[in-house]
Amino acid sequence: MEIKVVKDIMDANDQIAQKNRQLFDSNQVFVVNVMASPGAGKTSLILETIKRLKGKVKVGVVEGDISSSLDAEAIGKEGVPVVQINTGGECHLDANMTSTALGSLPLGDIELLLIENVGNLVCPAEFKLGEDMRILIASTPEGDDKPFKYPLMFHEADAVLINKIDLLPYLKFDVDAFSKAIKGINQKVKVFPISCTTGEGVDRWVDWLWGQVRG
Amino acid sequence: MEIKVVKDIMDANDQIAQKNRQLFDSNQVFVVNVMASPGAGKTSLILETIKRLKGKVKVGVVEGDISSSLDAEAIGKEGVPVVQINTGGECHLDANMTSTALGSLPLGDIELLLIENVGNLVCPAEFKLGEDMRILIASTPEGDDKPFKYPLMFHEADAVLINKIDLLPYLKFDVDAFSKAIKGINQKVKVFPISCTTGEGVDRWVDWLWGQVRG
Repeated sequence: MEIKVVKDIMDANDQIAQKNRQLFDSNQVFVVNVMASPGAGKTSLILETIKRLKGKVKVGVVEGDISSSLDAEAIGKEGVPVVQINTGGECHLDANMTSTALGSLPLGDIELLLIENVGNLVCPAEFKLGEDMRILIASTPEGDDKPFKYPLMFHEADAVLINKIDLLPYLKFDVDAFSKAIKGINQKVKVFPISCTTGEGVDRWVDWLWGQVRG
Repeated sequence: MEIKVVKDIMDANDQIAQKNRQLFDSNQVFVVNVMASPGAGKTSLILETIKRLKGKVKVGVVEGDISSSLDAEAIGKEGVPVVQINTGGECHLDANMTSTALGSLPLGDIELLLIENVGNLVCPAEFKLGEDMRILIASTPEGDDKPFKYPLMFHEADAVLINKIDLLPYLKFDVDAFSKAIKGINQKVKVFPISCTTGEGVDRWVDWLWGQVRG
């Protein structure tokens, strides 16, 4: 009974994700689902990415949070269209929440849509939103054992951004061992060591993303 | 329909949590549910707590993870009874998983049971396990805005441990503002700034915990 309900929810989600996908295609919007633990640097990465793509591509943002509109306010200051989803307790975005948010965005005037998921290394990986790409931000203070503990998230990511590399001198974190562990789960994944605080490595990520958007 | 299912699951969980509670009471075990984001320092705190309570109280540990037994292996080296729960995808422990794990622990020989929940700031707060106390570890690199984004978790905690204060010189994190935000959500909560790396503040936490266990 319970399993049946879960399957129904997943099927319903996939159907709505497909509708979102059609809407994105008809408006020629490239969509990135940004996933991470709480505080790994999702909003910071989105802000740094927007700054570097200004004038090159029209960016829009969907901000997902349990509660508050702090992140949407920070993004709004960059002058890009942004809409906040408050999930009201749900630990992930789903296709239906995303669909509702899209009604508040000028999709015809957006070429790259960055969707910030709820801070969580588990459930966001299970719910398609209709995106082109999934990225995972893993921050160095979280430790280099995370691929073993949250394998689905690392398996589902098209790119992993190792953020907060400016803190490496003060932590036990082995970047090579971490990268190797990720590749063991997901051979095709791109790995970008970055710091949103110092800017190190961010250009490399943005150049790659830009290549993906241009197709 | 969906809401009914969720209510049924919660009611069933509460009933099993109550049975766990009776089992803990009959064995005189004090139980702490340890919650946090991935990589905030749950296992490190448990290790530091065990070291300081050795010879004073008999400790046991339940380790909850999606996957892997890395943490249980680390705890096992301290010579305390430990059992690993792999949730196989679930983003939180529930009362039934806990109940199953208890069968593998010598409860009659344990006075303090530390249960490490899955790394997640959302759903663990919704599922009672039968514990006496809930603690939340919030690490400084996650940022000081977390109480606004994950209010239920901060509301449900009996104590918040602000971990990784050794990294404060390298971060933008306002301990006073953070503590104030927590108290705004939860007036009764105890707040302990600590570092599991340097040991700073850990004795104060353990002394308080010890007082709670002694009752």
